[in-house]
Amino acid sequence: MELQTYKTDFSNHLEVRLQKKEPAGLYNPIHYILNLGAKRIRPVLTLMSCDLFGGEVEKALDAALAVEVFHNFSLIHDDIMDDAPLRRGKATVHEKWNLNAGILSGDAMLILANQLLESYQGSQFKKLVSVFNKTALEVCEGQQYDVDFEKQDNVSEEQYIHMITLKTAVLLATALQFGAIIASAHEDDMHNIYNFGLNLGIAFQLQDDYLDAFGNPETFGKQIGGDIIENKKTLLYIKALELASVTDKKALVSLYSEKQESEGKVEKVKILFLRYGIPNLIEEEISKYTFLAISNIDKLSLNMHKKEKLKSFSKSLMERKV
Amino acid sequence: MELQTYKTDFSNHLEVRLQKKEPAGLYNPIHYILNLGAKRIRPVLTLMSCDLFGGEVEKALDAALAVEVFHNFSLIHDDIMDDAPLRRGKATVHEKWNLNAGILSGDAMLILANQLLESYQGSQFKKLVSVFNKTALEVCEGQQYDVDFEKQDNVSEEQYIHMITLKTAVLLATALQFGAIIASAHEDDMHNIYNFGLNLGIAFQLQDDYLDAFGNPETFGKQIGGDIIENKKTLLYIKALELASVTDKKALVSLYSEKQESEGKVEKVKILFLRYGIPNLIEEEISKYTFLAISNIDKLSLNMHKKEKLKSFSKSLMERKV
Repeated sequence: MELQTYKTDFSNHLEVRLQKKEPAGLYNPIHYILNLGAKRIRPVLTLMSCDLFGGEVEKALDAALAVEVFHNFSLIHDDIMDDAPLRRGKATVHEKWNLNAGILSGDAMLILANQLLESYQGSQFKKLVSVFNKTALEVCEGQQYDVDFEKQDNVSEEQYIHMITLKTAVLLATALQFGAIIASAHEDDMHNIYNFGLNLGIAFQLQDDYLDAFGNPETFGKQIGGDIIENKKTLLYIKALELASVTDKKALVSLYSEKQESEGKVEKVKILFLRYGIPNLIEEEISKYTFLAISNIDKLSLNMHKKEKLKSFSKSLMERKV
Repeated sequence: MELQTYKTDFSNHLEVRLQKKEPAGLYNPIHYILNLGAKRIRPVLTLMSCDLFGGEVEKALDAALAVEVFHNFSLIHDDIMDDAPLRRGKATVHEKWNLNAGILSGDAMLILANQLLESYQGSQFKKLVSVFNKTALEVCEGQQYDVDFEKQDNVSEEQYIHMITLKTAVLLATALQFGAIIASAHEDDMHNIYNFGLNLGIAFQLQDDYLDAFGNPETFGKQIGGDIIENKKTLLYIKALELASVTDKKALVSLYSEKQESEGKVEKVKILFLRYGIPNLIEEEISKYTFLAISNIDKLSLNMHKKEKLKSFSKSLMERKV
């Protein structure tokens, strides 16, 4: 099946499953965030994985929805914590309504995500719930590390990779594993598809960090240099700090301690990044994790045709190097 | 077994099960709120119910902890929404740490509560999770109605009872039902113990509302008139508004629209409440729901001795009419 079909199936399912309910103050923000034009990467992963392992795609729809509802719960609460006014170009929930609506609707979504898993039975149900709870807690831990790193002077490469693994990669991995669980795949396949998602997720986040500084403003869709303006200690910054001369290190630390963005800050930082070959180093890291992801595909007990499909999907996801 | 034994067992279990973990910023607030000197009413209900239905109390400890962790999640998030500085006389989580810590630690507790249920197997696990998700969502709905009512001019008695049922009573009912599920009680008993908790919970909340205005300041433990100061439309206010003369109704509405407490506000409101016999009317409502709770006990398939125990427990809970 094609990716677009998964997405259409998912959208139809979302519409049927999430009817408007009372109290409106609780459920309207949930409908709003879930219809904000998302790419539906995670639910598509669940449906695709179920399909690849020979399961019925229809049976994976509720699990796919659980993943998407959870993801959007985390967006609502993260946007409050980041004080973000916009999400996908539209007002965030706490901006459109208020802080209380953001907190409470987010809570309800976390519960709704759990509730969607009740469509499954027996050991499959238990497995889905266990994986879901573990992942959900890891995402919270990742968010906490992200918050902690803002105030922390020294963040190592290892710590950064650990943070993005928890905050971003585990949910992509879980989305894929959900499909495998529903298709009753072999234990080894469940394990390997999870690791594929984990490595792909890390590559994906590193690419996002790279594009945030060096992407094409016309095609990237977000403001270039957003992470630099917000003093986000991404791998670009961490690697630059490792390699820079004493003078450049001082300059970088000083630029990343600005509460208000000074004129030309983004350009100054990018010049420093270029001076130490950071774009190349990050591309190497992205290649490393993409390679690991591809090698996880090779371990799957799928035929060559299906493996190739998954590889080309991975490549298409990583090809937005604009 | 005695109530105090349940409480001690529970405290020991809490200590063993919730070890400190990293990141500290996420887990320290969880330990803080869970050790703030709570009465542990809900987990004690779970253990007592399991015991009454002939189950092993030890097996109910994780479910009891799930209920208590969930309850404390809701306290952290409610305290943010109410902008409350104190909880049980100590700083609230968002005051002691910050808003982000309050949101994120609360989220993690909601997940941890779910995770604790993974100790159970098969259909028992599914039943516990289903009841838990349904209840958790209802508690969010109740909180939303509570927030809505602050801005709503007319709140009916029915709407108010519905709100406190969702916000308070369903969790007490669920705590009791959890014990019954773990003890593998009959379906009828599960149903009746739930309804017992529901009615007792409503009576309990109405009594709390009553005591908030007419309790003995020396023994109540909270500031007398807190609800009046905050313009909370409890059943006392709703009933007074129904019965008051046009002039008194105007006075009451005006007093309940004060953003800043005027001098003598609490006394003025209490005089109006007394003029229309509100204390008696509320006592009648409390008796009504307590009677319903007692009649739910009579329906249980327990021996007379156990029924009497449950009745005397209910009475002891409702006897704090100070």
